[in-house]
Amino acid sequence: MTHLPEPDAESLELTAVLQALGDPVRLQIVRELAGGAERTCGSFELGVSKATGSHHFRVLREAGVTHTRLEGTRRHVSLRTADLEARFPGLLAAVLGPQAGEAAPAPSRAAAAQAVAPST
Amino acid sequence: MTHLPEPDAESLELTAVLQALGDPVRLQIVRELAGGAERTCGSFELGVSKATGSHHFRVLREAGVTHTRLEGTRRHVSLRTADLEARFPGLLAAVLGPQAGEAAPAPSRAAAAQAVAPST
Repeated sequence: MTHLPEPDAESLELTAVLQALGDPVRLQIVRELAGGAERTCGSFELGVSKATGSHHFRVLREAGVTHTRLEGTRRHVSLRTADLEARFPGLLAAVLGPQAGEAAPAPSRAAAAQAVAPST
Repeated sequence: MTHLPEPDAESLELTAVLQALGDPVRLQIVRELAGGAERTCGSFELGVSKATGSHHFRVLREAGVTHTRLEGTRRHVSLRTADLEARFPGLLAAVLGPQAGEAAPAPSRAAAAQAVAPST
């Protein structure tokens, strides 16, 4: 098995997707994945326990929001942008829109890494 | 008091709104209110107990999705379309969009009434 079970593109359910997105931690994951790059689950700084983090990744995957690829013991997660857009046009854009941020967006890891890069 | 407490337009929170929308019964309420008309809570046929229905109306109101106006013992509910659009542009349209229906959309009350009208 190279990836974990997930719903087909055509069987994504709106309520499940909305429910998956309706949580601050899961919304953070989705925002960080919105750039399009695949990330390992461990690369997120979610401020929750590993078990809680795993729960949130599972909810996103089972709702069809994310795709999880297995590579050895590593889990690589990516956003199912095309599938979501095909099924619920405009939803992801609205959720990720500039107005949709409750607080100022956290600096991206890349930006944060860059900020400290000279000394590391 | 002529209306029940609800969050200000500028303090609507995306996760609370998504959570409120992420339920089939609440999504049905929102869809039926999307035409813009105010409805009494009792006019919805939700297929759930009165207590459960009240719970769903409260979740929608507390998330800022709906406005509830009191008139005697009656509760009139309406969608906060403008507030939602101002805060999360495109979200409501995406959720209510034609693709967003999981199954064939249920016939509207008006259409259903019309269908049986000749014989009643």
